[in-house]
Amino acid sequence: MCTVIDTRIVGQSLPGQLYVDQKWFDVDLDEIFAKQWIFVAAEAEIAEPGDYVTVEFGARSVIVTRDNLGNVRAHHNVCRHRGARLITQANGSTGTIVCSYHSWTYGTDGRLMYAEAQAPDFDKRCFSLRSVAVRTIAGLVFICLADDPPTDIDDVARIVEPYLAPHKLAEAKVAKQTDLVENGNWKLAMENNRECYHCGGHPELLNVFFPTWGYSDSDAIPDRLTAVVERYRRATAELTDTWTRFGLPYRRIAQLDSRPTGFHIEREAMDLAGESFTLDGTTACTRPLSDDLPDRRLGRLSMHLQPNMWLHVTSDHAVLFSVIPIRPDETLVRTTWLVNAAAVEGVDYDLDRLTGVWEITNQQDADLVRLAHRGIADPAYVPGPYGPSEFQVEAFINWYVTRLRVNLGLDATPDQIAKSA
Amino acid sequence: MCTVIDTRIVGQSLPGQLYVDQKWFDVDLDEIFAKQWIFVAAEAEIAEPGDYVTVEFGARSVIVTRDNLGNVRAHHNVCRHRGARLITQANGSTGTIVCSYHSWTYGTDGRLMYAEAQAPDFDKRCFSLRSVAVRTIAGLVFICLADDPPTDIDDVARIVEPYLAPHKLAEAKVAKQTDLVENGNWKLAMENNRECYHCGGHPELLNVFFPTWGYSDSDAIPDRLTAVVERYRRATAELTDTWTRFGLPYRRIAQLDSRPTGFHIEREAMDLAGESFTLDGTTACTRPLSDDLPDRRLGRLSMHLQPNMWLHVTSDHAVLFSVIPIRPDETLVRTTWLVNAAAVEGVDYDLDRLTGVWEITNQQDADLVRLAHRGIADPAYVPGPYGPSEFQVEAFINWYVTRLRVNLGLDATPDQIAKSA
Amino acid sequence: MCTVIDTRIVGQSLPGQLYVDQKWFDVDLDEIFAKQWIFVAAEAEIAEPGDYVTVEFGARSVIVTRDNLGNVRAHHNVCRHRGARLITQANGSTGTIVCSYHSWTYGTDGRLMYAEAQAPDFDKRCFSLRSVAVRTIAGLVFICLADDPPTDIDDVARIVEPYLAPHKLAEAKVAKQTDLVENGNWKLAMENNRECYHCGGHPELLNVFFPTWGYSDSDAIPDRLTAVVERYRRATAELTDTWTRFGLPYRRIAQLDSRPTGFHIEREAMDLAGESFTLDGTTACTRPLSDDLPDRRLGRLSMHLQPNMWLHVTSDHAVLFSVIPIRPDETLVRTTWLVNAAAVEGVDYDLDRLTGVWEITNQQDADLVRLAHRGIADPAYVPGPYGPSEFQVEAFINWYVTRLRVNLGLDATPDQIAKSA
Repeated sequence: MCTVIDTRIVGQSLPGQLYVDQKWFDVDLDEIFAKQWIFVAAEAEIAEPGDYVTVEFGARSVIVTRDNLGNVRAHHNVCRHRGARLITQANGSTGTIVCSYHSWTYGTDGRLMYAEAQAPDFDKRCFSLRSVAVRTIAGLVFICLADDPPTDIDDVARIVEPYLAPHKLAEAKVAKQTDLVENGNWKLAMENNRECYHCGGHPELLNVFFPTWGYSDSDAIPDRLTAVVERYRRATAELTDTWTRFGLPYRRIAQLDSRPTGFHIEREAMDLAGESFTLDGTTACTRPLSDDLPDRRLGRLSMHLQPNMWLHVTSDHAVLFSVIPIRPDETLVRTTWLVNAAAVEGVDYDLDRLTGVWEITNQQDADLVRLAHRGIADPAYVPGPYGPSEFQVEAFINWYVTRLRVNLGLDATPDQIAKSA
Repeated sequence: MCTVIDTRIVGQSLPGQLYVDQKWFDVDLDEIFAKQWIFVAAEAEIAEPGDYVTVEFGARSVIVTRDNLGNVRAHHNVCRHRGARLITQANGSTGTIVCSYHSWTYGTDGRLMYAEAQAPDFDKRCFSLRSVAVRTIAGLVFICLADDPPTDIDDVARIVEPYLAPHKLAEAKVAKQTDLVENGNWKLAMENNRECYHCGGHPELLNVFFPTWGYSDSDAIPDRLTAVVERYRRATAELTDTWTRFGLPYRRIAQLDSRPTGFHIEREAMDLAGESFTLDGTTACTRPLSDDLPDRRLGRLSMHLQPNMWLHVTSDHAVLFSVIPIRPDETLVRTTWLVNAAAVEGVDYDLDRLTGVWEITNQQDADLVRLAHRGIADPAYVPGPYGPSEFQVEAFINWYVTRLRVNLGLDATPDQIAKSA
Repeated sequence: MCTVIDTRIVGQSLPGQLYVDQKWFDVDLDEIFAKQWIFVAAEAEIAEPGDYVTVEFGARSVIVTRDNLGNVRAHHNVCRHRGARLITQANGSTGTIVCSYHSWTYGTDGRLMYAEAQAPDFDKRCFSLRSVAVRTIAGLVFICLADDPPTDIDDVARIVEPYLAPHKLAEAKVAKQTDLVENGNWKLAMENNRECYHCGGHPELLNVFFPTWGYSDSDAIPDRLTAVVERYRRATAELTDTWTRFGLPYRRIAQLDSRPTGFHIEREAMDLAGESFTLDGTTACTRPLSDDLPDRRLGRLSMHLQPNMWLHVTSDHAVLFSVIPIRPDETLVRTTWLVNAAAVEGVDYDLDRLTGVWEITNQQDADLVRLAHRGIADPAYVPGPYGPSEFQVEAFINWYVTRLRVNLGLDATPDQIAKSA
């Protein structure tokens, strides 16, 4: 199995089998999605005790719920009697979890409360729902299916919480959530998001998103972008004052491939009005996302966390993305827009205006991911070279290959083992 | 391969792979469905010479027909020339079986009658259709795809014919037949039928079906069933007189896991009017199924035969169920209602009233089987404990594991080998 | 792997796995379709520089184009950057091939012309599209995906060009092209075309196609065909004069299984008016296909070339067939009708009349291929005997087994190795 990983050449895209083979897809589910921290929901989706969402990874389903004490909990969505799936709804609210088959009844904390007509020696305490590790960071819910989740999540939380907390995602509400099934491998959906070399295909997004993203100063930035670079530098200088005034950390931290829970966080200026992801850059919601941050022009706070999420926060909303593998060539991309819990649809914000730019951008990306998957599935595909502005794609690939090697127990270097400890 | 079977723990549901893996599904088709006696039709479906039904098990198709001499025959549905499928209709009537491809023509007894333009040394006698073992028991047609079918079918026939024969199924007619595809493994469809612990999900059926089924006297019957138990005991006492009067055997015989052709037969009282599977328990057909048994209140005669059938007979009709695997997660459940051949639809019986209770019950079971399959397919599934009233589910599992071991030639005990001889 | 091939018995259809197993389908794609010369298009489909068609074999896609110099070229349809599929249209015309993902731009000759924002040491010359061997024969385009294509294509071209060239296919135009997906293995689609033993199922075609095809004089031709044989002999004698007058070669050459690029070519008379594939045998196009061959009654020129094509040419049109595997049980049959480039639809020909007989014949064949596949997929299938008139089916099978053995490097005889050199 390590043979294919070993044929990977640094600086190039992965060997094709890693994207298209069922065998490697199964490895990805078992070694990446069942062993790393996975983003599954915003806390805003389970605001009240009894609220739940279910999340599916391949054949796995996990119930994420807020229990009666207000704690976020996660359990496998499988009855302990004869294995029936317990909850089939994507989300909802319930006081107890009752199996449809034989009415075994569990609390939102997973304890078996009731099982009719059992023998006298039956011990309910032995049949709680199997629990899943769960962790919230500034309003974002992560789970880990492993018995020994990567412990560096605490470090990551310590680093990113100061960036995220001022925006009060935990107190926001969900304005909209969309599920888009892309016809390509989940890694292609992640790679697609890690570079703006393809942004010529996103005319709507490019109104406000500087296409200079991914170019370093030392790179030969294409001539056609000279004027843009100038605008970008001016906007950044202005915003730095604003960020400083509000005490918002803005230093870029890039640890995408240097730790088990790889991540990247940054604040960046935006073009035109520079306020939000709209066609003219002005806000889509009249109420600020955080009442403590009334300034409309904050640029964007962007974070990525391996292997399956990224987000953008502007002054008026947050938009969260998660990537969930379905099949080797099918991936769910879930997009969630958060606004101030007090904002009123139709009054403070128009839903189409709030979501329009990312909805069309998602669809454009889905088309590209489909083309990428089809070409890579062709036996004539050979790995090709990443350009200078695709360095974060490569960081994702580095992370992925390292995690596979470490999680599979292959000949990891002492350094890698230390990192994954 | 035996490793998974060996991990099975008595008293618990099977390891998940046995329900969901393609490999084990193929084993089930080859070792269970191609080696055991399988129920395929009522004789009433092929009443006249030339009548046929085709039955499909995975890629296999078998033609069951009544030949010109009135004998029930079964042949593989494959032309001996270049392998074309011969009959694609589910049922019909024909004097000869003609291949659509090159017009090779077979008799209903399987003999090749005609093949155009062959060389002089071509010998038609070498190209009869490949035959399949067939056995009728009191109007029920069973086939066995093996060269050496289990011989204990003769013992089983000797035991169950006195129960079934008085109801004259062989002389009945088909009032209706429905095919329901359930989204779960065939074993889950069988298990579902082997307990009434889940009957709370069948409100229509429970009008007449005593939910005490599966509880033994020594079990702690749930308090909520106390009144029901009382009605059940009273009805049983009354019916015993009726059965005795008509000379109907009624002793329960349970050999579900103690012989190659495992079965279970019993007579049971029914609730309310106690006559038939209707909402109030009164008959759905004014003509008795057997002219020799005019009493409306006969309760039910129920039989199960491993691995794929069960039936219920009341005074006015019989309802037969067969389970046919399609894919690891897809199973055909075929239901056939028989009434007196002289009964006239719209006069003696209303079809919706005759079939309504089981049609809705089948759909409810299909929903439960789907949930069971989805949960068991989750890697988080672990086998769970059967309760006291699920002992017949366990008997099915015992039978299944024993047959797999014996048919695969694994380390069977001498006793098992003797039984399968 | 050779075991299954070795179980093949000469004179009988192939073992079932070779038709139905995914493993063997993959072998067919890799060892037959990726190593032999494959018919992909008529030159008429890419008449002008920049015209292209794409052809898909399983996950492979090939762009066949006419470059700016007028040469026919073929390239893998995969970008050299990150592997995206380049062209998704089945056909079209373009000056350059631009990747939708990051705008890498290739010439129609495959050279990388442009890739934005690369590092200074990036060498465009290293990233041309991967080329595919291509060969045209009298207006027919063949490709070979192997690095070392069978060299006997030159011999085959030398033999068949004198037959084909007078009909000027390279100067014709496409009147219509249809794609029919048949639910059976590609080999069954080929076998189906290699005998007329099944032609009773083609009443429309049989108006003009002599069902004597495949019978040799020494065979016992069925009595019912006596009158037909007489008509066939008379028509052949007449046509021989016509062919001689126009200098058209007409000797039958059958090398279906005696060389790597097996083929068969013949001229044959047709029934009724004997001019074209219409219900009464009169021409469907008033303009002759070749201006040099104005005689309407030319019979048919028919050619087959292993593994995936056959064609018929009459005085007024040509009809080309290609077979492209999709899945073990799914095959694309593409049919292309060519007429004189100067012929005008609705004036010189009616499209329905031109295509009607083969469209209905194709559908009838698709039904037969589906039945053949279903029966062969049944474990009860055993190979059956070919009759005397099915000798070309057997020649195809001989060719197929020999190519598998040689291309897989199995214990080929020195003679076979010489042929494949």
